[in-house]
Amino acid sequence: VLTVCVPAEEDRGALADRPDREVLVWDSSGAAPAGIERTQFLVAPYMGDVFDPAALAAMPVLEVIQLLSAGVGPWLDRVPPGVTLCNGRGIHGGSTAELAVAGLLSLLRALPEFGRNQVEGRWHERWTDDLDGAEVVLLGAGDINQRVAAALSVFGARCTFVARTARDGVCSVDQLPELLPRARAVVLALPLTEATRGLVDARFLAALPDQAILVNVARGPIVDTDALLAETSSGRLYAFLDVTDPEPLPSDHPLWQVSNVLITPHVGGGTRGWHRRGMQLVSEQLERYARGDQLRNVVTGEY
Amino acid sequence: VLTVCVPAEEDRGALADRPDREVLVWDSSGAAPAGIERTQFLVAPYMGDVFDPAALAAMPVLEVIQLLSAGVGPWLDRVPPGVTLCNGRGIHGGSTAELAVAGLLSLLRALPEFGRNQVEGRWHERWTDDLDGAEVVLLGAGDINQRVAAALSVFGARCTFVARTARDGVCSVDQLPELLPRARAVVLALPLTEATRGLVDARFLAALPDQAILVNVARGPIVDTDALLAETSSGRLYAFLDVTDPEPLPSDHPLWQVSNVLITPHVGGGTRGWHRRGMQLVSEQLERYARGDQLRNVVTGEY
Repeated sequence: VLTVCVPAEEDRGALADRPDREVLVWDSSGAAPAGIERTQFLVAPYMGDVFDPAALAAMPVLEVIQLLSAGVGPWLDRVPPGVTLCNGRGIHGGSTAELAVAGLLSLLRALPEFGRNQVEGRWHERWTDDLDGAEVVLLGAGDINQRVAAALSVFGARCTFVARTARDGVCSVDQLPELLPRARAVVLALPLTEATRGLVDARFLAALPDQAILVNVARGPIVDTDALLAETSSGRLYAFLDVTDPEPLPSDHPLWQVSNVLITPHVGGGTRGWHRRGMQLVSEQLERYARGDQLRNVVTGEY
Repeated sequence: VLTVCVPAEEDRGALADRPDREVLVWDSSGAAPAGIERTQFLVAPYMGDVFDPAALAAMPVLEVIQLLSAGVGPWLDRVPPGVTLCNGRGIHGGSTAELAVAGLLSLLRALPEFGRNQVEGRWHERWTDDLDGAEVVLLGAGDINQRVAAALSVFGARCTFVARTARDGVCSVDQLPELLPRARAVVLALPLTEATRGLVDARFLAALPDQAILVNVARGPIVDTDALLAETSSGRLYAFLDVTDPEPLPSDHPLWQVSNVLITPHVGGGTRGWHRRGMQLVSEQLERYARGDQLRNVVTGEY
């Protein structure tokens, strides 16, 4: 019998009921359920608290921690020796890319402005830009931006991928000084690391042409909030932010009131479809684990 | 020498300056320019007035009327005998599809709702749907909906095309009763004809599941406005409308104030990129005409 611990009662129902599987429910708050010491496979809560060392110590035979997020930051220094950490790569890609495209197209086609006119019952035609022939710079060449590029290309955008190191079809961050001045939009979908923290600073933003759109569906601290506030509140740049720094954004933060900025509360990956895909990943991982096969999405030091 | 009449001074500059071409500027308002009687090729104003018979009578050697719109309705009974009518098919497809996708994704991902929270400085996470596995019904199987389908498929939507008559990969309107009850969204991108006027009526809307999204980037009268008002103001359905009936929508029309409805003022095709593409089409058509080649986008009775 394989003992699995999932964070919520609703997750139990999503896993196939099988005689060779015991499913416990615990998110590390409150008392641990009976049998927690048998846990071999832990599914961590999505965007919940990281299990503290005492909670993990209650699971002495733990072998796998499966996250449902793509980001692994807060867990990295908590994983007990010998335990394998897997992330949720792939299950959020579609919905995060979808939100990036929704936000980018909304700003490009002036939907917030038309929305303000709508409140006043005002039919005011004005021409906006469209993507045909526009250059879009995609920072991060993973699943999310691959999908963003596929969707934007349908409308004639010319997409350029940028990552830490150049490779086939991907430019290096060193080439940003040439790419940014002709970028109609920049989409951030890359992990937060010491190298990417503050990457989008005042100088980065100053290199963008007037009216350019910054989209951040990655992590808030990749962008220097004060620099972005200056460039958007002046009206020069536009931004769609699903993530902010700090997060949650305090209700009196001036960024909320900038009309060139559209903010959603970190909901890129968290959709109803996400839970279905997440539980499907967990099911597949459990079968691999039971068969002794190599797990998917194993997080290594180089992530 | 080929004499062309374009609607605006800015169009003159967009056409190559050539010794074998004379370019006049007239949109049928005010006095006709000198030489108007030599006009062989007329470029009609985009979304402007249709030339009246007296204006057309000033061009006795006219051979071609080139529209910059996809729709031809108001011109059909004005074309003098022997004159060829061409439309702007293709030049709006990208930007109209782009707006349809922008509106659909905005509603699906609750951007208007998050926008209202933004005004209040409120960080309120809530899960929305995403397109993964969702059924989308596309009425009209032309350039616009082909692009809409290509973009939505990137996010896992299952798209079904519907047109008047079934053909390979396209269902017939007779199959709508089976398709509508499982449609997460319906996108209208088809011409207004006597067959499509009022097609989306109370019965059509009633067949859609709760929370379904109607997108209209075609023509307002395809939808029964009162029926749509009832189904959206009750909160049951959502709609993104770039076209309305009547149009412009009067400022006191109740549709403006429905929070489930997002309205843009018929700006699907009218973007800055559109003008560039339109003038490129005109240039190509002029070269075909000068060479005696078959013109593109000729409007026949069956349109």
